[in-house]
Amino acid sequence: MRTVTYGAACSLDGFITGPGGALDWLQNSTDANAILKAYFEATDTLIFGRKTWEADSQMMGGSPMPGVRTILCSRTLTKSPHPNVELVRDGVGDFVRALKREKGKGIIVMSGGNLAGALFAEGVIDEVGLNVHPVLVGSGTPLFTDPGMRVNLKFRDARPIAGGCVMMTYAVKRPKR
Amino acid sequence: MRTVTYGAACSLDGFITGPGGALDWLQNSTDANAILKAYFEATDTLIFGRKTWEADSQMMGGSPMPGVRTILCSRTLTKSPHPNVELVRDGVGDFVRALKREKGKGIIVMSGGNLAGALFAEGVIDEVGLNVHPVLVGSGTPLFTDPGMRVNLKFRDARPIAGGCVMMTYAVKRPKR
Repeated sequence: MRTVTYGAACSLDGFITGPGGALDWLQNSTDANAILKAYFEATDTLIFGRKTWEADSQMMGGSPMPGVRTILCSRTLTKSPHPNVELVRDGVGDFVRALKREKGKGIIVMSGGNLAGALFAEGVIDEVGLNVHPVLVGSGTPLFTDPGMRVNLKFRDARPIAGGCVMMTYAVKRPKR
Repeated sequence: MRTVTYGAACSLDGFITGPGGALDWLQNSTDANAILKAYFEATDTLIFGRKTWEADSQMMGGSPMPGVRTILCSRTLTKSPHPNVELVRDGVGDFVRALKREKGKGIIVMSGGNLAGALFAEGVIDEVGLNVHPVLVGSGTPLFTDPGMRVNLKFRDARPIAGGCVMMTYAVKRPKR
């Protein structure tokens, strides 16, 4: 079974962007890059929320990473923005459950709290990896939205890295079904 | 100048209570108690928000801690609930600024995000100490509300303690005035 990780850089008050989409508080560092590199080496599939895809596309040029299966979850889009991007419009839970049963490496969810909340509610997220930045941005895109249930986590690690950031990792404890 | 600390136990998704005020996810441990003991030894003044006061009163019997100056900030109350509790109805920023200039030990803010946000906006909070619990509770009383400005923090420590909790401490970087 492949592992699905919800990974994000966030502010201490739980936003992945600040007001107006502000990302100027995000810190680049050799520490963060080494962590990202290790994550991506263990990953062959990315699942994007629409807004995160659009923000990334603006920065990266709109093409998916070569060799990485790229899935875009959106209820509003009717057509994939790129031939190498698979659009999933609904049934994301079933889609990800099927994906996890396929052979392959890890899967990373690149999104804000909306898609992540839906996937937590579907019970398909296995790990959480947060790069917590030393700032309160006040408002913006939330890291978490209410999955409508309690999600218990198992602490793995809290590692201070450059720039006052802390890399925090957790495993999701599976709810009894 | 006395130090004002915003201290709270919170879920990873940034709540100090869960739905309906749920606190059953809060973990008691000798680690957490030792940290609280050290905090309280360095403190002689507590500033409560109304809801936190009411929740604490239900658990503790409604009397302030002996020997600790106890301040209750509330716009809705018209009368202090206890002769040894000072009610501050407005001007909390000026009140806390004056308090910091008095001689004394540390000051701890015991509240949710509403009062904390107002005090961050007033620039009177010096430190943040969070006992981050390994759970997503989904909704409840927020740890932070929007102070209407960015608050930059200086990372101090992230210490794993019992029960998968992480004690995270930060100093507030003073905005230039």
